Amino acid sequence: MRKGLIVQKYGGSSVANVERIQIVAKRVVAYRKKGYDLVVVVSALGDTTDELIELADKINAHPPEREMDMLLSTGEQISVALLAMAIDKLKFKAISFTGSQVGIITDTRHTRARIVKIGADKIRQALKAGKIVIVAGFQGMTPDQDITTLGRGGSDLTAVALAKELSADECEIYTDVEGIYTTDPRIEPKAKKLEEITYDEMLEMASLGAQVMQARSIEVAKKFDVPIHVRSSFSEKPGTMIIKEAKKMEDVVISGVTLNKNEIKITVCDVPDHPGAAAGIFKELSGGGVNVDMIVQNVSHTRKTDISFTVPRADVSKAKRITRRASSKIGAGEVIVDEDVARISVVGVGMKSHPGVAAKMFDTLAKEKINIEMISTSDISISCIIKKKPAESAVRSLHEKFGLGK
Amino acid sequence: MRKGLIVQKYGGSSVANVERIQIVAKRVVAYRKKGYDLVVVVSALGDTTDELIELADKINAHPPEREMDMLLSTGEQISVALLAMAIDKLKFKAISFTGSQVGIITDTRHTRARIVKIGADKIRQALKAGKIVIVAGFQGMTPDQDITTLGRGGSDLTAVALAKELSADECEIYTDVEGIYTTDPRIEPKAKKLEEITYDEMLEMASLGAQVMQARSIEVAKKFDVPIHVRSSFSEKPGTMIIKEAKKMEDVVISGVTLNKNEIKITVCDVPDHPGAAAGIFKELSGGGVNVDMIVQNVSHTRKTDISFTVPRADVSKAKRITRRASSKIGAGEVIVDEDVARISVVGVGMKSHPGVAAKMFDTLAKEKINIEMISTSDISISCIIKKKPAESAVRSLHEKFGLGK
Repeated sequence: MRKGLIVQKYGGSSVANVERIQIVAKRVVAYRKKGYDLVVVVSALGDTTDELIELADKINAHPPEREMDMLLSTGEQISVALLAMAIDKLKFKAISFTGSQVGIITDTRHTRARIVKIGADKIRQALKAGKIVIVAGFQGMTPDQDITTLGRGGSDLTAVALAKELSADECEIYTDVEGIYTTDPRIEPKAKKLEEITYDEMLEMASLGAQVMQARSIEVAKKFDVPIHVRSSFSEKPGTMIIKEAKKMEDVVISGVTLNKNEIKITVCDVPDHPGAAAGIFKELSGGGVNVDMIVQNVSHTRKTDISFTVPRADVSKAKRITRRASSKIGAGEVIVDEDVARISVVGVGMKSHPGVAAKMFDTLAKEKINIEMISTSDISISCIIKKKPAESAVRSLHEKFGLGK
Repeated sequence: MRKGLIVQKYGGSSVANVERIQIVAKRVVAYRKKGYDLVVVVSALGDTTDELIELADKINAHPPEREMDMLLSTGEQISVALLAMAIDKLKFKAISFTGSQVGIITDTRHTRARIVKIGADKIRQALKAGKIVIVAGFQGMTPDQDITTLGRGGSDLTAVALAKELSADECEIYTDVEGIYTTDPRIEPKAKKLEEITYDEMLEMASLGAQVMQARSIEVAKKFDVPIHVRSSFSEKPGTMIIKEAKKMEDVVISGVTLNKNEIKITVCDVPDHPGAAAGIFKELSGGGVNVDMIVQNVSHTRKTDISFTVPRADVSKAKRITRRASSKIGAGEVIVDEDVARISVVGVGMKSHPGVAAKMFDTLAKEKINIEMISTSDISISCIIKKKPAESAVRSLHEKFGLGK
């Protein structure tokens, strides 16, 4: 008797070599034996994708994106074939499909395509025939049958989208960590694995520096209410459930503390305080492909004001150049770039109904003699820009003050 | 103005690394500059296919053939993407396709599929748009969209089939030798490159040991009268044309001498001379997957006769076992296996109208004191089984006696 349908996704590190593929095969078969139907989404083996990119780069530093997708999609195709062989070796029936074959139709934006629809008939037929279905992650095809890839975190997206399309009972994302933690265990050894977290919290965590899942696939999971279970492929322990509303929500104010050192701060001084001035800066930055994250502008008491914002560290020189040009264009003053910054955030849906979280955060930082340079808040998070050096000890202090280690 | 359409096929050694892919790109572009439309068929990079087979073997010694095709087809997909990138780098427009994408429809015999039809609309559209079309060799798909591969020499077959489908003016097969030779230049340095050879001669040459093209693709070329030009990707010199009727045929009696050391001889003694006795042996061998090549049975003067035949060296133990079993079943006598044999052949459509070729061949071998153990003839070839040791010097003698070095 069928117990239900589970979609499992295994990342590149889970299928990095022959032995790991065999471990994944055994795990898949164990679920099959319990009576579950299984759709397994697989990424490319270990560093395959990077190796292919390197090979392409030797031939053409700016390869046509269509051909890049043609090239990169082979990585997952190799994985699915090998996993199907490993499952066959264990005497279970499996069948592998490329993204094109299962009908994952995307738009035509090569290397960063978006899924338009999924025609999962082939999967349904194979499941009906009692087979374990293995699908290449990260890829699809345009209506014209050109192969596309989905960009960073694409395999997660494949898994979530298939779970939605097939109304799966659960979508398991296997990775090399055991779940989502209250903070980075490398910074705070007392960090605890969360049993559950809401989509919104996870979205804040993802965009704030937790690297387990890309924001894009969580957004899709939230939109279609697909329950996600993030867990380790090297362990039998349950991981973290990402769900709509956490059951234990009442007691929990803060779910986690995150740290992001990959942004820098830019301040434009003496921006004329009239409509369109700020827009002038951010339009130029966006046109230049620079992703602006936090933006802070204070109430102005004179006719001029200062605007501060953060951009990815990788874009620092481009952002500097564009901002200086824009600043002089709108008649603003000096542009100050500060690379010695870190962003520290507390995240939790509980803060909506618990006042005093911000005060507690600022107080904790103050006691550590840490200066707060920028503050930004959302419904479920509070972020502060501070100096880099005390950032890690600040994480530990906040982790303790909000009782996350318990 | 368009000069015509050329289909080019580059084997694995021609695209073994980045530098060679760039050389192929330059060659393709040179033809484009001359005004030709181009469809380029590419094999997998160097040893990629062998590496993938090895990887599969570590996981499952008997992998499902469907999954093997899924795996192996990635090799050519990588090649076509990289070649398209290399051509783009030279500022020419190129587009790559998998076998599935161009609509190479095959039967469902995975790992050795046969092409059923080709829907080349995508290629025609791309050519019309001025693009160089690059197609993954060796692969196709079933009507159910399962990926298939065409078996040994499959990329040649892809090229020939596309040349036929698109009514190409020429089909160029690029390899690491400069064409078809009168004999193996490693054995006889005086061997000469042939300007032209007929399909039939080439078929005899291919099945008799010349390793340039597989018999299968030549059969298809002959059937549809596709002119083939076998040449080197490392040279600008013309190679050998494979055509219906050689122009210089009148003067040429023999086109080449071939040597095959990959067969062994089996003799079944005292086979009862009644209908069905020989069939009993060969039915068993064929059922066991052993490919029998030459068969010789003499007129019988008693009620018993001897039957000799050759089988591939790789199948020796299986063939021995099956033949012994079959022999005792039909009441025949001893089974003698001789592994110390080589097959030497002279090939030429000219021999049809020139008597005395056989006599000249036997006489030449006799003068070298070489004993002939079996003789087999076709319309355009004469083959002898001799001992292995004198085989190479026999090739040189025949090459000289038939005036091939001139």
